[in-house]
Amino acid sequence: MTSLNCLIEQYADLYVRVGLNVQPGQTVFLGAFRGIPVENADFIRMVAEKAYDAGARRVHVNFGDDHLTRIHLSRVPEEALADVPTHMIRWYEEAADGGAAFGSITGSSPDALAGIEPSRIARAGQAMSRAMSGLSAMTGAMKISWCIIAVPTADWAAKVLPDLPPDQQVEGLWHQILKASRVTGGDPIQAWQEHIGRLAERRGLLNRYRFSRLHLRSTGTDLTVDLPQKHEWVSVGSTSTPDGNRFVPNIPSEEVFTVPHRTGVNGVVRSTMPLNLGGTTVRGIMLRLENGRIVEFDAESGRDVLKGIIETDEGSRFLGEIALVPVDSPIAQTGLLYYNTLYDENASVHIAIGRGLPPCIQGGSSMTPAQLEAEGLNVSAAHLDFMIGSDAMEIDGESADGRVVPVFRSGRWAV
Amino acid sequence: MTSLNCLIEQYADLYVRVGLNVQPGQTVFLGAFRGIPVENADFIRMVAEKAYDAGARRVHVNFGDDHLTRIHLSRVPEEALADVPTHMIRWYEEAADGGAAFGSITGSSPDALAGIEPSRIARAGQAMSRAMSGLSAMTGAMKISWCIIAVPTADWAAKVLPDLPPDQQVEGLWHQILKASRVTGGDPIQAWQEHIGRLAERRGLLNRYRFSRLHLRSTGTDLTVDLPQKHEWVSVGSTSTPDGNRFVPNIPSEEVFTVPHRTGVNGVVRSTMPLNLGGTTVRGIMLRLENGRIVEFDAESGRDVLKGIIETDEGSRFLGEIALVPVDSPIAQTGLLYYNTLYDENASVHIAIGRGLPPCIQGGSSMTPAQLEAEGLNVSAAHLDFMIGSDAMEIDGESADGRVVPVFRSGRWAV
Repeated sequence: MTSLNCLIEQYADLYVRVGLNVQPGQTVFLGAFRGIPVENADFIRMVAEKAYDAGARRVHVNFGDDHLTRIHLSRVPEEALADVPTHMIRWYEEAADGGAAFGSITGSSPDALAGIEPSRIARAGQAMSRAMSGLSAMTGAMKISWCIIAVPTADWAAKVLPDLPPDQQVEGLWHQILKASRVTGGDPIQAWQEHIGRLAERRGLLNRYRFSRLHLRSTGTDLTVDLPQKHEWVSVGSTSTPDGNRFVPNIPSEEVFTVPHRTGVNGVVRSTMPLNLGGTTVRGIMLRLENGRIVEFDAESGRDVLKGIIETDEGSRFLGEIALVPVDSPIAQTGLLYYNTLYDENASVHIAIGRGLPPCIQGGSSMTPAQLEAEGLNVSAAHLDFMIGSDAMEIDGESADGRVVPVFRSGRWAV
Repeated sequence: MTSLNCLIEQYADLYVRVGLNVQPGQTVFLGAFRGIPVENADFIRMVAEKAYDAGARRVHVNFGDDHLTRIHLSRVPEEALADVPTHMIRWYEEAADGGAAFGSITGSSPDALAGIEPSRIARAGQAMSRAMSGLSAMTGAMKISWCIIAVPTADWAAKVLPDLPPDQQVEGLWHQILKASRVTGGDPIQAWQEHIGRLAERRGLLNRYRFSRLHLRSTGTDLTVDLPQKHEWVSVGSTSTPDGNRFVPNIPSEEVFTVPHRTGVNGVVRSTMPLNLGGTTVRGIMLRLENGRIVEFDAESGRDVLKGIIETDEGSRFLGEIALVPVDSPIAQTGLLYYNTLYDENASVHIAIGRGLPPCIQGGSSMTPAQLEAEGLNVSAAHLDFMIGSDAMEIDGESADGRVVPVFRSGRWAV
């Protein structure tokens, strides 16, 4: 049996070679968007070595710390709450223009910010989203290679696996992560090529249908989602940077997704899983939409944080993504709730408030924001995924000619 | 007995209130110059809390990691070795202009960079020194408040206290640090006021002598050091920022120091203790100087790293500091070698290659570099302290009228 340490090393290798697909001479930023947790220093050292193995010119690591974030958000005076590190963002933007790769790690404690005044979290978050919007637009349009993966922290592991003895929780979560990331099967690189191929088949099928509308029904949800005429279903492996560098932005990834038409979403939709938003748990989200606009929203908990995101800008009042994931996906089959969007969204059908991704419009990656909007894609500094899947989810696809195709039945693929 | 945790908290408090002397509304950078070791996250969280307690507007923490530094210096391709994070440096410079405080932590493993090609370390170090020279000039002129303190890392503790069981080394080093920093006596703030007062008396005495020359003799050392006519002896507590904020740049600090006249140093000087330079140990330094210029240098080990520093710029071929510390100083009395300049320099008479500090010239903090040079102060991007003290050290002070005063006898104060 392969040791845990050796599997983790293979995971670091997968991150660099498949996720970021680091090229000779490329600059690599790790933790630029949200610092690498100091707890994950061991892992990120391994990643830095692998990146240099791949020929990186320079690897920059920006560390962060949930405890410090908590201290800052609790203590920073009101007038400094919206301060952003402008110089660093400019550095990242110039590096992105120069073709750098950007790796992030997710693994924060879901409760890191519990108890902090939600309006303060929202103000700081909005300021950062706006300041980072240029970079977000580049990642969204797949103009640079980027990848998010998960690495356990002790607090997160305790939340996901509370029934394990504390000294086994981190190792336990590692095993789930490595399995979900297809690292445990012997040849992770090969396993990912195959997985990408299977997603590509599903994507090709959906693209050939040219649906004009999806109709989603589930407990408390009845939503019609018009798709832009030039919509494109996307999955990891189908995108590359303009110079042809194929990368995988999420590890793991089980979704096949596209954009709703900005003004073509109507009805009511409810979340089926709690959502961790920078350390606050948001439960029981309800949105009511008319002609694409969120005209009413609520949440059983975390409503203020949700409100802060919806009020980021005009575009954050519309949707930007619809992603299909069956309830029998490998992550869903673990039966665990991860309180982490990277994992939970890959266990469930989900939608996103805010920014749509340009590759979801044919030729969209080289369109201007105005052109994208004209094609029905929503533009925003915010992008918030939340999970709406369950085994009650039924989805129909309607063609322009009125034909209705069952896409999901009982939460599973029906095409 | 006060618990170790409580003493460490008092040490964090001393750092913020006496070291940096954080003012209401002030921005605080921790680890800007050289990142805070990720191992010290617990301690820096405590410091951040204390800084907000003192009214800080915003506390920024920049983490670093010796292991990553080692990976970078080993792997970065030759053409990227001299890359510097220009945007971040500009951020720090603007913040410094706006009156921010800068805190650093020292505690790296003395062997962190052992085995890496010294010319690579030197190139990277020179590039960083040059890029940071604007900031170094501001800290040297005491235009901003700054403070360096030490926090143990496991590797450093193992080097200093190799005879302790590994699981007791960090705690053992903490006890030495807390004792040397005058935290263990009950009221650290009061203890520092008294200590600063005692140093001020010694400083006042030396300033009243108006020596024109010092003559240092010891095993292998015979050096005459002319002092500028307007030289000023300095010790911690005697300096403040232009707006009157008194801070203590080093904790601990036992030295009373001034500048040699740039062109007035002649003879041979030898180091008496090993020196840790960013992870490389330099032993047995020998310098021969004529009219202030280093005309010959050698080292028993680490010569290339020393060479890199001496060759930083024109000013790094001259001296910038002479500091007097008796062999019975509290740190010297621990009988330990710390392989860390903050500690070892405060246990020994030392001199520095490179930049002189403007406060060591009367009115120097408001002089231009050209004015300072005209007064005999050396200007450089480099500043390298090394220890030359021992109980064989004899120092005479010579007045302009030819009077000779014994300043040190057998390594101890004689005035």
